[in-house]
Amino acid sequence: MENVDHIGIAVNNLDERITYYTDVLGMKLLNVEEVASEQVRVAFIDAGNTHIELLEPLSEESAIHKHLEKRGEGIHHIALQVVGIETEMERMKNEGARLLSEQPKIGAGGAKVAFIHPKSSFGVLYELVDRS
Amino acid sequence: MENVDHIGIAVNNLDERITYYTDVLGMKLLNVEEVASEQVRVAFIDAGNTHIELLEPLSEESAIHKHLEKRGEGIHHIALQVVGIETEMERMKNEGARLLSEQPKIGAGGAKVAFIHPKSSFGVLYELVDRS
Repeated sequence: MENVDHIGIAVNNLDERITYYTDVLGMKLLNVEEVASEQVRVAFIDAGNTHIELLEPLSEESAIHKHLEKRGEGIHHIALQVVGIETEMERMKNEGARLLSEQPKIGAGGAKVAFIHPKSSFGVLYELVDRS
Repeated sequence: MENVDHIGIAVNNLDERITYYTDVLGMKLLNVEEVASEQVRVAFIDAGNTHIELLEPLSEESAIHKHLEKRGEGIHHIALQVVGIETEMERMKNEGARLLSEQPKIGAGGAKVAFIHPKSSFGVLYELVDRS
């Protein structure tokens, strides 16, 4: 584990929430992109030492749509930067962590990503992100 | 807003959860302290570019106890480093943010802290931390 890559936050309306983060919290918008595989539109916000990723669902199939229905807007996940994600996944499994997939997928920015089941992490959804 | 100072996570059992963060996630425990004013025992964990603060309630009066009863274990707040917290609080109020107190309080490590109401931040409890 190297760093907190970003904190993912589920939102109903991306453009309105971007304004809150820039005008009230005083952060800087970096870029907006669609991640078709996850059915989300995301905004990356510069929070100094890490990023905040605002996630708006593009369809009812999106995990973010389900999160919004069940829990409303709020923090969805914490992403941790790792180097050598396959090895890290194997190590964590051996330590008792439950991963949501056997292999990493391709996430925003083309990084390799995988998720640890929130039950395994005591209520926190951790994403592993390998940008190397 | 300078940096993400830490991410606060509500836990039922501090010592057990510390083991998960060190052994499974591969992070380093920095220190454990009691914050009597908030009725919590906290562990600060080194997450590279920021910290994770695990919070265990010391009594039923603690906001963390209420969070655990209502939502279970999981992410409780995101703390943002600011310089000149009184000026920042005033600026945010003028931008429409709703703060939980008129003046900052003294939090863990002797920092000045204040909270933005989660309804005002679309489901996220933001803490402002001034360590200057």
